[in-house]
Amino acid sequence: MTGATSSTAPGKDQVRGRHRVVVVGAGFGGLEAVQGLAGGGIDITVVDRRNHHLFQPLLYQVAGASLSPSDIAWPIRSLFRKHRDVRTLLGEVEGVDTDGRHVILEDGSTLPYDTLVIATGSRHSYFGHDRWEPFAPGLKSLEDATTIRRRILLAFEEAEREADSARRAALQTFIIIGGGPTGVELAGTIAELAHLTLVRDFRSIDPNATRVLLIEAGQRLLPVFPEDLSAYTRRALEKLGVEVLLGAPVTECSANGVVLDGKPIRAETILWAAGVQASPAARWLNAEADRAGRVIVGPDLTVPGHPDIFVIGDTAAATGVDGKPVPGLAPAAKQAGQYVARLIRQRLQGTDTAAPFRYRHQGNLATIGRSLAVVDMGRFKLRGALAWWMWKLIHIYFLIGAQNRLSVALSWMWTHGIGYRGSRLITHGNFGRQDAAKKPGKGGHSP
Amino acid sequence: MTGATSSTAPGKDQVRGRHRVVVVGAGFGGLEAVQGLAGGGIDITVVDRRNHHLFQPLLYQVAGASLSPSDIAWPIRSLFRKHRDVRTLLGEVEGVDTDGRHVILEDGSTLPYDTLVIATGSRHSYFGHDRWEPFAPGLKSLEDATTIRRRILLAFEEAEREADSARRAALQTFIIIGGGPTGVELAGTIAELAHLTLVRDFRSIDPNATRVLLIEAGQRLLPVFPEDLSAYTRRALEKLGVEVLLGAPVTECSANGVVLDGKPIRAETILWAAGVQASPAARWLNAEADRAGRVIVGPDLTVPGHPDIFVIGDTAAATGVDGKPVPGLAPAAKQAGQYVARLIRQRLQGTDTAAPFRYRHQGNLATIGRSLAVVDMGRFKLRGALAWWMWKLIHIYFLIGAQNRLSVALSWMWTHGIGYRGSRLITHGNFGRQDAAKKPGKGGHSP
Repeated sequence: MTGATSSTAPGKDQVRGRHRVVVVGAGFGGLEAVQGLAGGGIDITVVDRRNHHLFQPLLYQVAGASLSPSDIAWPIRSLFRKHRDVRTLLGEVEGVDTDGRHVILEDGSTLPYDTLVIATGSRHSYFGHDRWEPFAPGLKSLEDATTIRRRILLAFEEAEREADSARRAALQTFIIIGGGPTGVELAGTIAELAHLTLVRDFRSIDPNATRVLLIEAGQRLLPVFPEDLSAYTRRALEKLGVEVLLGAPVTECSANGVVLDGKPIRAETILWAAGVQASPAARWLNAEADRAGRVIVGPDLTVPGHPDIFVIGDTAAATGVDGKPVPGLAPAAKQAGQYVARLIRQRLQGTDTAAPFRYRHQGNLATIGRSLAVVDMGRFKLRGALAWWMWKLIHIYFLIGAQNRLSVALSWMWTHGIGYRGSRLITHGNFGRQDAAKKPGKGGHSP
Repeated sequence: MTGATSSTAPGKDQVRGRHRVVVVGAGFGGLEAVQGLAGGGIDITVVDRRNHHLFQPLLYQVAGASLSPSDIAWPIRSLFRKHRDVRTLLGEVEGVDTDGRHVILEDGSTLPYDTLVIATGSRHSYFGHDRWEPFAPGLKSLEDATTIRRRILLAFEEAEREADSARRAALQTFIIIGGGPTGVELAGTIAELAHLTLVRDFRSIDPNATRVLLIEAGQRLLPVFPEDLSAYTRRALEKLGVEVLLGAPVTECSANGVVLDGKPIRAETILWAAGVQASPAARWLNAEADRAGRVIVGPDLTVPGHPDIFVIGDTAAATGVDGKPVPGLAPAAKQAGQYVARLIRQRLQGTDTAAPFRYRHQGNLATIGRSLAVVDMGRFKLRGALAWWMWKLIHIYFLIGAQNRLSVALSWMWTHGIGYRGSRLITHGNFGRQDAAKKPGKGGHSP
């Protein structure tokens, strides 16, 4: 390792004097920015703390044991293998020196930039209750998804061995906190996993005795959807065996369960889908942020006072030309990435027209179990089996690479057609639920 | 949790008074035993510390980023879902009470048996150098495979960022210790990963500068194969860019590399494929074991003095009717499982003929990279591309389930035909190689 202020080794194809763009984060926004910049005579460096781009909309299916991690993730550097002007680095950003114009990595090495694009996404937010995190993991990364999968499957495994009926009931109770698309999708997938996939697999327990509770503090599920679709979603989930509890927030969360409306509900598995918080980019930049930690950006997505720094996607609080906030959706991040790439190229060519970012809303989608969905595209609304087919086609279309499209289509054929889930592996601490925070003296398995 | 001597909850379909067989371990041997016993009016319990059966012969392809974990593993309980007389438990065995006839699990609960079948396999052995384990992981479980994959891919990622050329060279040096089939397969797959798959992905480093060293203490690779196939394997590996070092053992192993023949070789990634040791079944049973820890069993695979306890597969030191030791191969374990199931059923029917276990050797196979293999079936020997096709067809045939067969065939089509590897994900501690034991003060990344 070299000293604390050294730069990382430069790429062999990088040319002295060329404009250097550093893109932090290879999610939907960062990926589009890099793709839009590649081939434009610019030295591009993309840095991410993961080696893979993740197709987050299908993450809940990895958590629900329908898909494998490799079905929905791609090594970032392989996506850019043909672009010699793009360099990929695995690294964790620790800060940005906005005066010296370089990004600081965790080992003290630096990445100099002329233009910086920050697209680092968001993490779950526990609204000030960070101590709930070990009891109620959220769903943002592949590790989150395999952790949730492990907890769900291990709860059934432990129930199968458990002689005490009260603890068996707690092991078979699953609580999902948050009634947005992720909460709805997790609740539907767990209910089906219990009632359809696992039903014949156990001998001592009855998977049909499984309770799946979806808790939403607001008055309805899917608050960004029209009310009739929210009501439809609730009915559809209830048909799958999900208990939907609306209108009261969870006030306590522990290894034993939750407290709702003053009443304790015992459960060994709690999942968090209630809120997100932006990555610490505002701190790196010393920039103004909103309540969710998102950097407040101007109409051209730059940070006020820093025309060389763009913040896009879930990390940014952007306002559309219609005055409405740009939502934290994959299509919004993608459009922002495309806009920023175009703007940087225009600036270098001297053709920048200073046109603001215009977000085109394409709609909202959410699935309910393995055969229903709701689609809201403004005047066009759809629900039920046809919406689910539309959802499936859209998602297969947006997956990267023919191999992944085929693999996902194959898995869905099996899961949806035959009812079998191929990805029910428990790995990494597969025994004794070592990652779960256990109450001392509760008498769980020793790891 | 109940008290220290309680039994686990019994299965609903288990019948009082029926003969109870407990099978410990759901590898090739255990699986065959259960399948042979199912439907015979017996209460069968299979207990494993993993929730999945693993197709170990393809594990090196998960380590080499060609296949996904779910391609080669199946939830044990789903394999027996249709057999109501088979109960599957996730549990870690801690001991056996041979007088009281019950298996003791890690939480103190017990599994009573009338007949016990132990098929718990083996782990790597460091021949008394257990402190080498953190520096040189072996390949036995899915976690081992993803650990090795992570180390290999992270070594390239770190090399891409490393400005110091000596450390970059160490990051690009891969040492595999042990020249048996696993070592040969790992060396070939890493050489191809570096020279074929990653070659266009990096900008600062040259993947072609990668060194892959295969070290074997004996005089030739694949010692169980005929000499001409060993020589062919060596030439084929050298063509793939592997340096084969024969005739001297590694005398030291550390975070810096190895010492061979008194000379240090610097390398950041070392993999262990040199030896295995049986699971601690001999200790559980207080039975006689050979040097590798395998329980010495009689001609009917029972433990001397315990006609109700069978030990099969890699855990047992069995001698064939020809006086030769039964090898530690998947087909041998499967045949033993079938034999034991038949014998137990015959005993219950009173038709036991006391015929000893007869092992039929079907041959040895090993692959060299993605297009060559060696096959030794006694009089029938084969090497090269045709042997590799034969290897592929045999392995696809033995995979369980149509979905896995299709998925593996698809992955191979891509990997072998197009040269792309879809499973290059780094997960769980994907940053800073947290699992690697770092020499203090060496200045690796802080996690």
